[in-house]
Amino acid sequence: MSDNEKIDIKEYSKNFPKSKKYYTKGSTDQIMVPSRMIELSPTISKGKNPILNKPIHVYDTTGLYTDTSYTINVDRGLKPIRHRWIQDRDDTISSKRNTPTRLKNTSQINQQNLKDILVAKTGANVSQMHYAKKGIVTPEMEYVAIRENVSPHLSKNVKITPEYVRKEIASGRAIIPSNINHPELEPMIIGKNFLTKVNANIGNSPVRSDIDEEVDKLLWAVRWGADTVMDLSTGKDLYETRERIIRNSPVPIGTVPIYEALERVNGKPEDLDYEVFRQVLIEQAEQGVDYFTIHSGVRLEYIPKTMNRLTGIVSRGGSIIAKWCLAHHKENFLYTNFDDICQIMKSYNISFSLGDGLRPGSIADANDDAQFSELETLGELTKYAWDHDVQVMIEGPGHIPIHKIKENVTKEQEICFDAPFYTLGPLVTDIAPGYDHITSAIGAANIGAYGTSVLCYVTPKEHLGLPNKDDVKDGMIAYKIAAHAADLSKGNPTAQYRDNALSKARFEFRWEDQFNIGLDPYKSREMHDETLPQESAKVAHFCSMCGPHFCSMKITQDIRDYANQKGINDHGVAISFGLDEKSLEFKKLDKQIYIKK
Amino acid sequence: MSDNEKIDIKEYSKNFPKSKKYYTKGSTDQIMVPSRMIELSPTISKGKNPILNKPIHVYDTTGLYTDTSYTINVDRGLKPIRHRWIQDRDDTISSKRNTPTRLKNTSQINQQNLKDILVAKTGANVSQMHYAKKGIVTPEMEYVAIRENVSPHLSKNVKITPEYVRKEIASGRAIIPSNINHPELEPMIIGKNFLTKVNANIGNSPVRSDIDEEVDKLLWAVRWGADTVMDLSTGKDLYETRERIIRNSPVPIGTVPIYEALERVNGKPEDLDYEVFRQVLIEQAEQGVDYFTIHSGVRLEYIPKTMNRLTGIVSRGGSIIAKWCLAHHKENFLYTNFDDICQIMKSYNISFSLGDGLRPGSIADANDDAQFSELETLGELTKYAWDHDVQVMIEGPGHIPIHKIKENVTKEQEICFDAPFYTLGPLVTDIAPGYDHITSAIGAANIGAYGTSVLCYVTPKEHLGLPNKDDVKDGMIAYKIAAHAADLSKGNPTAQYRDNALSKARFEFRWEDQFNIGLDPYKSREMHDETLPQESAKVAHFCSMCGPHFCSMKITQDIRDYANQKGINDHGVAISFGLDEKSLEFKKLDKQIYIKK
Repeated sequence: MSDNEKIDIKEYSKNFPKSKKYYTKGSTDQIMVPSRMIELSPTISKGKNPILNKPIHVYDTTGLYTDTSYTINVDRGLKPIRHRWIQDRDDTISSKRNTPTRLKNTSQINQQNLKDILVAKTGANVSQMHYAKKGIVTPEMEYVAIRENVSPHLSKNVKITPEYVRKEIASGRAIIPSNINHPELEPMIIGKNFLTKVNANIGNSPVRSDIDEEVDKLLWAVRWGADTVMDLSTGKDLYETRERIIRNSPVPIGTVPIYEALERVNGKPEDLDYEVFRQVLIEQAEQGVDYFTIHSGVRLEYIPKTMNRLTGIVSRGGSIIAKWCLAHHKENFLYTNFDDICQIMKSYNISFSLGDGLRPGSIADANDDAQFSELETLGELTKYAWDHDVQVMIEGPGHIPIHKIKENVTKEQEICFDAPFYTLGPLVTDIAPGYDHITSAIGAANIGAYGTSVLCYVTPKEHLGLPNKDDVKDGMIAYKIAAHAADLSKGNPTAQYRDNALSKARFEFRWEDQFNIGLDPYKSREMHDETLPQESAKVAHFCSMCGPHFCSMKITQDIRDYANQKGINDHGVAISFGLDEKSLEFKKLDKQIYIKK
Repeated sequence: MSDNEKIDIKEYSKNFPKSKKYYTKGSTDQIMVPSRMIELSPTISKGKNPILNKPIHVYDTTGLYTDTSYTINVDRGLKPIRHRWIQDRDDTISSKRNTPTRLKNTSQINQQNLKDILVAKTGANVSQMHYAKKGIVTPEMEYVAIRENVSPHLSKNVKITPEYVRKEIASGRAIIPSNINHPELEPMIIGKNFLTKVNANIGNSPVRSDIDEEVDKLLWAVRWGADTVMDLSTGKDLYETRERIIRNSPVPIGTVPIYEALERVNGKPEDLDYEVFRQVLIEQAEQGVDYFTIHSGVRLEYIPKTMNRLTGIVSRGGSIIAKWCLAHHKENFLYTNFDDICQIMKSYNISFSLGDGLRPGSIADANDDAQFSELETLGELTKYAWDHDVQVMIEGPGHIPIHKIKENVTKEQEICFDAPFYTLGPLVTDIAPGYDHITSAIGAANIGAYGTSVLCYVTPKEHLGLPNKDDVKDGMIAYKIAAHAADLSKGNPTAQYRDNALSKARFEFRWEDQFNIGLDPYKSREMHDETLPQESAKVAHFCSMCGPHFCSMKITQDIRDYANQKGINDHGVAISFGLDEKSLEFKKLDKQIYIKK
């Protein structure tokens, strides 16, 4: 166990109410795919035997933290479940790390914990896209195929097979971010034909910095469903913070390497150069970062297009590059050196998250020429990366009003050849600082429904300050809602299954089940208990909202009991209606009953 | 001042930061239309004189509570600003009230406060639609025309003239809910060609009851922007609660009269009849209720269509009527007596809110036959009400996945001839009890963007319990976001104006202005100050999110300063770019800089 009090391992090891970790075995013992199984109580109807309700399964991002048979040790890091898969491919070699100069002579990090790393053998390409194009179904592909089906009991969704995953990866429509130096990762897939994913941003800033506070946020984010996490730290101890995060993360970790590069040149963008950046890239690649945001699309000629904007350039990376380009009056070195970057990416299976450095930062600037010009370049770079078999996703905005959201997805799919889209929100209005998890969840649900693959969360603190744990949770829940709403809209059967289970529980007054199937069992229970704390209220056929005489669902149940036809309807809900005959009778009479005058 | 400690008048009389009440005068002194004026600080740029920023105006629902020249007295009620307008029309007579029997011999209500009421002279029709069809522009119409333009300084939006309002009312596309017995009302308009409105539900339940707690919720709701409020009380003292609410409400009040009718028959739906209902209708009409939800569309033949649903009937009114219909095997008495109801409505200018008793209560039941069958009947009833010149809006769902939202609006507009649509959410997923203000704000923003006129808010307590004040505020903010996002999407210029003002303040690091222009100045300031409480941080060119070196907006400002071209761009933002020439230079060179290999 970690002796660091800033990380509340006990909290993270606690299973959600009535939930337990369930593993579905793949083709070998090496492939054990987790889901969270929620046990339900039986349906009780007047004068009938209780009817059992099968447990439901939900997608589980919490990793080994909620596996009661596993002992967590934050100093050691998680079990490297992918280790053997990578070794078996026999295309990597072990090597000493390139650590930052300042670490060589300090005790700031336990050097023993900095294990040797892996890198592709000379000439080898270890990207999942490379395997996919060669027709190889990797364990990672099989793992995500099982994971996407969510419930082992839902057999309808036969579409998601390992071979289907392979084809999607080969075509570039999907990616499995999974650095060979992040063997602790539980693989997940990003693509429009899969479940919509949520990314959480964490990271310290020069104003607030603490390594274990960031690890704590990571574990908190995955507890609430983060599928990927970006470490956007810009403060102190960047290397050490990242190391600690990756070793303890069951989900892919992304970074924006230009931030660390900027620290190396003391915060002066004009002092950057590709050599500094490249060094950072290699160090982070060796640590196991799964995807890099790289702003290669901010070309010099696009920068003047931001002059007439209301809010200029709002991407940190974009503004850093823009300043460099203008200071030197040279083309962006992340563009001119893109080939070399691709070489690095494919040596570790790191995915590109091609940054949208010119995304709009206000409704007024949405869908403008600067934004779409950069997108054209991201399309060009996508093809380029794919020629190297490097996996790619494309970052998107930002601040977009509802009626301009669809165009973003359509253009991205067309210009970037269906590479997965990864958007920040978008916020559908600028006027609600303090509530931008909501303004942006509206945009996120819509852009997700149109086919965006990953929704980067926005917390209530956006535009105001660095999020704390409460903000991270609020952001996560808002985005799990948005992603799930998008999946429902896209007709994903594993999504509808959870809504149906919850609504059935609601209609049958199985309060505990209603709480437990929902996204936040603690909050819903707390709200219910605010006015009706008694245990008896957990089976009562009403709540404090309407009281016993006005509960529509209770009256509906009464109606069904009132009549005398017994049975179960298509949803498995016990009904008792007796209306079919009466309806026929009624139809025989003059059906139109006119309004009396 | 009220001596009742449950109503915190001081809190409601406090203006928002840097805000004051502003009145725009209409054609006479009688027409004084409020807006909230927010003062802004000047734009400061390096080496330049400060540039003043004009105050901005926002729509104001807070009534006289925030007029510092007016003294609030909750026992007396608000000033009856419409009194003379109604008198001048000379089509009403004064009359004693019909109060509930139980009140005649009790002291539960101060009989002196129950003033005489107005009713249309025999044969007269006092509905706004009636005047509109006759070509009369009422003061109410002029008032809302000025109000919809929001800012007296925004002259672009000339579309909204009193005559335009009259035409919209005459066509049935818009309504002004305004009972002649609610002269305290500040008129507002509901229709797809006007600003999207938000309704807040308040009301006690048998589990929790307190008159002044409900008045307190009313004032709290209008403070946070409620355009209309429904009193859904089902507990004790219904008449007294409603009286207190209406006398103190600057916004239209709606009710569901079947709730009180049900209380009169001791909660047994089967004991209801039209006479009981009619008595309640008249009593409430005399009190000044502005719109009634009436479930006339729940026809007997539709009830079996709910049998195969996952969640049956979830509308309280719908389930009560369904139970009555089945108990008697008779057609709904609200349908068969619709003509008589219209007679009552036009005697007071009460608007119909035709209830959707068969709305879906889960994603599984969305857009089903039961729901759309009822909508067909609502269309029939709309025409019928319009023949009486009675104003109508149509209630809508409920629980609808994103891809099925548009169909709801399209069908409603077609079947109900563009009568304003008034929807509850809809929730776009069932799986987030405790966060249904968010699940439903997503649906609300979308359905609003498609043309829904009023969004009925949903609080975080939905499905779990009776909302408290925090819940009311959370629900209101989420819905102001949704309504505003819809208005932006529909291209309303008064909407874009507020976003631009906020984004300009944000980009120029006018922190105080950013807080004050937003929907919740207190919350955004509190969040900002959590990490940077110092006064100096209010003009700092960064926040704790990224710190001084990584603020993209600061870097952009630096970029603009860095170059040497001075000026103001189209948005009034001070820029300094110097790029035009450089860009030309660049174009003269070989424009394509290829990626190095």
